[in-house]
Amino acid sequence: MTTMRAAVYHGPNSVSVDEVPVPAPGPGEVLVEVGFNGICGTDLHEYFAGPIFVPDGAPHPLTGKELPLVMGHEFSGTIRDTGSGVTGWATGDRVAVEPVYRCGACPPCKAGHYNICQSIGFHGLMSDGGMARFTTVPDYMLHRLPDSVSLELGALVEPMSVAYHATTLADLHPGDTALVFGAGPIGIGVFQALRGQGIENTLVVEPSATRRAAIERLGARTVDPAAVDVPALVADETGGAMADAAFDAAGVAAAVRTALASVGARRPTVAVAIYEKPLETPLLELVMHESRIQGSLCYTGVDFEAVIALMAEGRYDTTGWVEKIGLAQVVEDGFEALHRGEKMKVLIDPVG
Amino acid sequence: MTTMRAAVYHGPNSVSVDEVPVPAPGPGEVLVEVGFNGICGTDLHEYFAGPIFVPDGAPHPLTGKELPLVMGHEFSGTIRDTGSGVTGWATGDRVAVEPVYRCGACPPCKAGHYNICQSIGFHGLMSDGGMARFTTVPDYMLHRLPDSVSLELGALVEPMSVAYHATTLADLHPGDTALVFGAGPIGIGVFQALRGQGIENTLVVEPSATRRAAIERLGARTVDPAAVDVPALVADETGGAMADAAFDAAGVAAAVRTALASVGARRPTVAVAIYEKPLETPLLELVMHESRIQGSLCYTGVDFEAVIALMAEGRYDTTGWVEKIGLAQVVEDGFEALHRGEKMKVLIDPVG
Repeated sequence: MTTMRAAVYHGPNSVSVDEVPVPAPGPGEVLVEVGFNGICGTDLHEYFAGPIFVPDGAPHPLTGKELPLVMGHEFSGTIRDTGSGVTGWATGDRVAVEPVYRCGACPPCKAGHYNICQSIGFHGLMSDGGMARFTTVPDYMLHRLPDSVSLELGALVEPMSVAYHATTLADLHPGDTALVFGAGPIGIGVFQALRGQGIENTLVVEPSATRRAAIERLGARTVDPAAVDVPALVADETGGAMADAAFDAAGVAAAVRTALASVGARRPTVAVAIYEKPLETPLLELVMHESRIQGSLCYTGVDFEAVIALMAEGRYDTTGWVEKIGLAQVVEDGFEALHRGEKMKVLIDPVG
Repeated sequence: MTTMRAAVYHGPNSVSVDEVPVPAPGPGEVLVEVGFNGICGTDLHEYFAGPIFVPDGAPHPLTGKELPLVMGHEFSGTIRDTGSGVTGWATGDRVAVEPVYRCGACPPCKAGHYNICQSIGFHGLMSDGGMARFTTVPDYMLHRLPDSVSLELGALVEPMSVAYHATTLADLHPGDTALVFGAGPIGIGVFQALRGQGIENTLVVEPSATRRAAIERLGARTVDPAAVDVPALVADETGGAMADAAFDAAGVAAAVRTALASVGARRPTVAVAIYEKPLETPLLELVMHESRIQGSLCYTGVDFEAVIALMAEGRYDTTGWVEKIGLAQVVEDGFEALHRGEKMKVLIDPVG
């Protein structure tokens, strides 16, 4: 096999399933046969409003790549070939891929926070990614999947690590009370990450009845902020202490406003959303309670390993919010259906 | 003497110098002869837009007081009488007063953060304060002034403690780089608190040439944000690492926006301002750098003691930004002159 089908991003509103060459692993790289690849909100932004992250007109400094590119940065798979210099990995190994290129030299990288590398690149946005039968990745991106973790779950390690990472910035402990704003894939991931770490007292705030129903099926307690005064409810249930942390996985002003009014003294609201524009933010709430807004971006390898370990313990449930489609349907049943709000999470089967 | 002159707040735009009874100290209280009392931005808000904090129509739960009230919560003085049960304090002791009434029972109080007490009250806003010859305060509000600290400096301990407290929330160390937005009294206090703690590399961002000149006379390095690209300057001077902390003592959207663009990865912007309304805040900056906005409110006793210790070491300079007036001139040379921007900080001499 020398060619394969791939979802290629050519520019705004233009993704097509093209026949492209099968890549060969270079030194330090492996060839991964993709099991499943998820479609991310970032992919939707690129499709409908991009190119944003995808380099256009100048190659990315770390990958040397630009448009057109094979999309896909949330994927699992099986190693089918190894390049020179790769040790510790072999054909047949099942993996989740942590798709981050980093410079290793900027101040955040030197401090170990390569998720905020000043030159950060993503496999599948700044290089040919996982919406294809095969892709090649540097071996430092690989995380081993135990036999008990399916390739479907493996494709969810990336978005679940975004959510898990946010929980590590919240200074929460078992017995604490948490609020999650937004029950999309990241909100679901925050809820499951908290529960997996023994933080059972979580309330999910979500205006959509459909999304509330979805996360309730996973065991979450929810509230409709259009019907309930959330800060008053939290005050009542905590004896006035308010929530130990809030997570904004909605990215809208109403969620930020309600979160800041609902967290306790000296406690964080973790922002794990892509804010398209500045929001009217009641900073006086931060002052009056000495609370804080803490940004959270992506993940590092420790988050990937933690999520995989929780998956191996059966702590992640895909019931009701994850659907699989074939690569041929990527535009209509993937990008367009997600954009219309008909689906929450779509995994692409590259042989479908 | 059974009566004294006092600046009494009657309601919006109404402060008058009235003859009122000299108070007598109750159990656990002392009578303080006021040395000097500063006019605070909060006092201006009460005068021009209040009552805001001053109780109107219902007595404060901790003090039982409401309008009309003697204003003044930034003051020093000398003890002239002690009520029953007061130990450790005697007539003639020189003191700064930490003017916070707290419940001791709410969650923040129980955690030691009585500065964010849910029932917090201030002496001089929720009770008769220091714009008078005498005032009575509970003995737990007292902090001893060493002989080397003048009563003028003693009246500045309160606002300087607001600023000092903000620096304790910034996780800074000698050698770090700090940005201070706004060179009013709180910005000046942040600059002097940082310098007193060995953090010498501070840049003050202030659009007013008058205020820049004032803080420069104290030894600060300044920049005009209308003339200089502050994030680019910080990037250049830090090799891309950006500032280790920023302080917003301006309370305006431009300052918050520039601060968030100028602090480094995982670093704080400390908000030490009273935001009159929600501001357009670029939360995406927090996410992309995993930085945070941390609110700071008032102080506790440890901040008072730290400021007094630095004052005793000669680390606070009032040159060029502090003026004294007599009580009789409180409205025209105090409230009105401050409102017109003609003065930065005014201390009232109650015998003037």
